[in-house]
Parts: sequence; structure tokens; C-alpha cells
Amino acid sequence: MSAPSEPVRTLVNGHRQTSISAFDRGFTLADGLFETIAIRGGRPLLWEAHCGRLEQGCGALGLIAPERELLTQEIAQLRGGDTDGTVRITVTRGPGARGYALPAEPTPTRVVSFDSGGPFFGASPLRLRWCETRIGLQPRLAGIKHLGRLEQVLARAEWNDPHIDEGVVQSVDGRVIECVAANLFLVRENVLITPTLSDCGVAGVARGQVLATARTLDIETEERDVGPGEVNTADELFLTSSVRGIAPIGSLAQQSFAAPGPITAQLIEHSDWLR
Amino acid sequence: MSAPSEPVRTLVNGHRQTSISAFDRGFTLADGLFETIAIRGGRPLLWEAHCGRLEQGCGALGLIAPERELLTQEIAQLRGGDTDGTVRITVTRGPGARGYALPAEPTPTRVVSFDSGGPFFGASPLRLRWCETRIGLQPRLAGIKHLGRLEQVLARAEWNDPHIDEGVVQSVDGRVIECVAANLFLVRENVLITPTLSDCGVAGVARGQVLATARTLDIETEERDVGPGEVNTADELFLTSSVRGIAPIGSLAQQSFAAPGPITAQLIEHSDWLR
Repeated sequence: MSAPSEPVRTLVNGHRQTSISAFDRGFTLADGLFETIAIRGGRPLLWEAHCGRLEQGCGALGLIAPERELLTQEIAQLRGGDTDGTVRITVTRGPGARGYALPAEPTPTRVVSFDSGGPFFGASPLRLRWCETRIGLQPRLAGIKHLGRLEQVLARAEWNDPHIDEGVVQSVDGRVIECVAANLFLVRENVLITPTLSDCGVAGVARGQVLATARTLDIETEERDVGPGEVNTADELFLTSSVRGIAPIGSLAQQSFAAPGPITAQLIEHSDWLR
Repeated sequence: MSAPSEPVRTLVNGHRQTSISAFDRGFTLADGLFETIAIRGGRPLLWEAHCGRLEQGCGALGLIAPERELLTQEIAQLRGGDTDGTVRITVTRGPGARGYALPAEPTPTRVVSFDSGGPFFGASPLRLRWCETRIGLQPRLAGIKHLGRLEQVLARAEWNDPHIDEGVVQSVDGRVIECVAANLFLVRENVLITPTLSDCGVAGVARGQVLATARTLDIETEERDVGPGEVNTADELFLTSSVRGIAPIGSLAQQSFAAPGPITAQLIEHSDWLR
């Protein structure tokens, strides 16, 4: 991640600028969504899937999604000679008057930023903790990477220890959902399990890719409710994110795990997007 | 409400400007909160209560609340010769790098805006509808007027009919919680009832004021779970908001109500802040 003082290259609706309107509904109401995409060898990784999720999310919120071709051009323009880095695309309903009513003629805001940090693939086994902050239940927004991320902010604020890489968060009713900024997978008796995200959580693009890869490898997969006990006694644990790829988890609080375990290693080996 | 094209007077961290950083965590993560305050006769109404809620919310999110005196000065500066209007105060954790981790040294953003619309007190009986959009369950954020307001955006987007003034929203588990941009009260057998907000909803300043007023009038009050059936068969209904005051509800979908009913009228009569 880039420090705030590093230069970040940004386009707002196609213009080189780093400011937006204080009346943008993304700022005033979290009325929008975003994607975070790894760039490697000059290419946005899992591009089709990211665009698909962005368009699906825009559809769910009644926003007009930007054209893929336009985004491709803007990313190319921003990265310049850099072949690796991370892009964030934010789409909001644009400026609006006070209140919740939709503007009569919304003019969406599109922010595309590139920074040369990342992707962070192939790190050593991660150390995780349990978070106390729980994720609220809201099926209407579940899966969408919308701008309302205060729960993740509070969960991430629970620790300062630089040796802790991530935190596992549960829903308010005690199901294991995801990590603060990644999805969670466990392996139990050769079955690949990831929490269902029908009530809350972000349906990560890397998560979807890993599930697809597992099916091609004839690894049995389950998307279902997961309890903390199952996580603690899993044979293998790993997290997925567009920026961190498939990252084996070596420890979660007091529990240790083989990292990578055999199925995790198999999935990494067969994930071409990581190379 | 002011149309986006009308001039809006705004201070960002004390400076006359209408833009904020595209990296402000209020924009990127909804990492902040806000207050909406009615100005009448040159005075911010329910000022102590608004400041109290702002400070409480900042405490809950680990933000530093702005000084009351500073806010008072900025509001006076913005309203100029206008005696009536509406102020929005937004406080965020300020600019940050990509990711959820808190900035090492956060520089909070404070946006104060004034527009000459409102307050809208003493309107004729309101017409309400039921919203299909439900509010998620999240005790950690319940009551706080944080920036993550996508649920309200989706609920408000359910209707365009200008004759509909507001919508009643339920929680995902079917309890009646509030209106899109106001709190809801019902009267049943001379008891004043308003939904408990321990799992979701915004604890409105006007709501708190009405409960306090009711107690001084020896009106029995209940904050508890409320079902839709109780609302439909209430003797009186009204909503409260800082900008709309105490607003009698004449109809909710197919149900009609005396508006104002006797207890509603009594509460309005004894609410000095409305005059």
C-alpha cells in the first residue's frame, strides 16, 4: 500500500485531478461502489471478472457502469511505464442535493487511481487474529463491494501489531464470513469450504476464481455457513484477494496450520493469474 | 432541499471550497459521520443535542470531534444574513492510503454546509408508504448517523410520486425501525411508542427531544420492538426529524390516521424548539 505522501496517479471522470465535489453522493451517502485490481506485466488481472462484478454491483444499485474500454484506456494512461501495481476504480452516483432522493439526472463520478504498490503474491504464511467487530446482516447489499466499509475500518482498527497480517470477521450472528480485506477458505477432509455470502460479506473476484479453479481440478467445494470451531480445526486455511492472490495462513490466534497445505498448493499451482 | 444547481455555502476545514480529496476516507470507505441541523431565527435548533450526538458518534468511531465553538463560528459565517436554513456537518477520518488500516496520524476532514432551504415545520399531514428495502442488523453502528447510507438511498429510490412524503422501513427481521430520513412514533391507548434502535436505525436528535418532552408531560413512553400490525392500527402516527420537526402522518399506504391526533398535538404544542 502506498503511503498518503507518495504520488498517486488519478483520473476523475477522465481528468487528471485528485479532488471530488464535497456534494458527491459517494462522500455524503456512500452511494457507490469500487473495485481493487492488481496490475501485472501491464495487464489488469482477472479483468473480465472485475468488470463483471462492477457491472453487476452497478445494476444492483441503479448506477450506470462505465464502459470497459474506457476503463482499460484510463488504466493504461495512469500506469504509464509501470508494469505492476494496483488500481482502484470507484463509481458513485455523483453530486446531489442534500437528502436521499436520487438526482433527477444523475451525473456519475468515476475515479480511477493507480499506485505502483503490489500485487503482493507469494508471501510467507500469514498470521491472523480473530476480530471482535462483527459484520451486519443485510442480504440486499451482501456480496457488493459498496462504499460503506465502516465495519472493515473498525475491524482493522483492532490491531496495530505489524506481525498480524489479517483478521477474521464473523457476522453478528456468529458465523465466520471473511477476512477484513480478503475472503477466507478452509480445507477439511479434502473439501474446499468458503463461507456463503448471502447475508453479508464481499464476493471477492479472487474467491470466485479459486472456486472455479477447484472445480476444474475436481476438488469438492462447498459454499455454506461456517462456524469458528470448523475454522480452528481446519486442515488448511488460506485467504484470497485480488491484491494478495492465494495466501496460505500459517496461524490464526493460537492455532497453527500447515501453510501451504496440499490443496492450497495445488490451487496456487493451477492459478495462472498469479504469475 | 436545495437543487444541486443552487449555490451552497461550504467550508472544508475552515476554507471556502466545495471540493475534498478523492482519497478522503469519507469518500473511499464511508469512514465518518454527519449531522443535519435546522437553523431558525439565526440559531441552530437543538444545538446541544446535535453536538452531543456528534461527539458520541465520533467517540464510537475513534474520530476527534470538532470543537463546538468552532462549529458555531463556521455556521454563523456561512449563514451570513440568512436567519433560516439547514446546516450539514460532516466529519471524516480524512485522507488515507488505499486499504482499511487507520492512518498513522489522521488529519480529520470537517465539512460544514449551509443552504437556505428549511426547516420544514408545520406541514400538512404526511402521506407515507411502506418500503421494501430493509435495514441491516448491526448493533455496533446502530444509532450512529454514519456516512454509510446506501440502505436509505435504496429505500428512497423506491418511489417517485411527489405526493408520497416518506417511507417506513423495517429491519431485515421484520421489525418497524424508522422512516427513510426521520424517526417514527406511534400512539396506542395514550402510550407513546417508538422503535428501539439497538440493532439498527439512526437515533434522531428530534426523537430524543420528543421522548424528553413526553416525560415532562407525564405521557407514558415505550422504546421497544414494534411490528407492522401495531403501526397500521395505531391511534396516531407522526415522524420526527431535525428538519421537519414533529410531522403528523395522515396516511400510511391504505391506512388513514387522525393528523394531528391529540397526543401529537400536545407534543407539538409543548415543543418550543419548533417555534
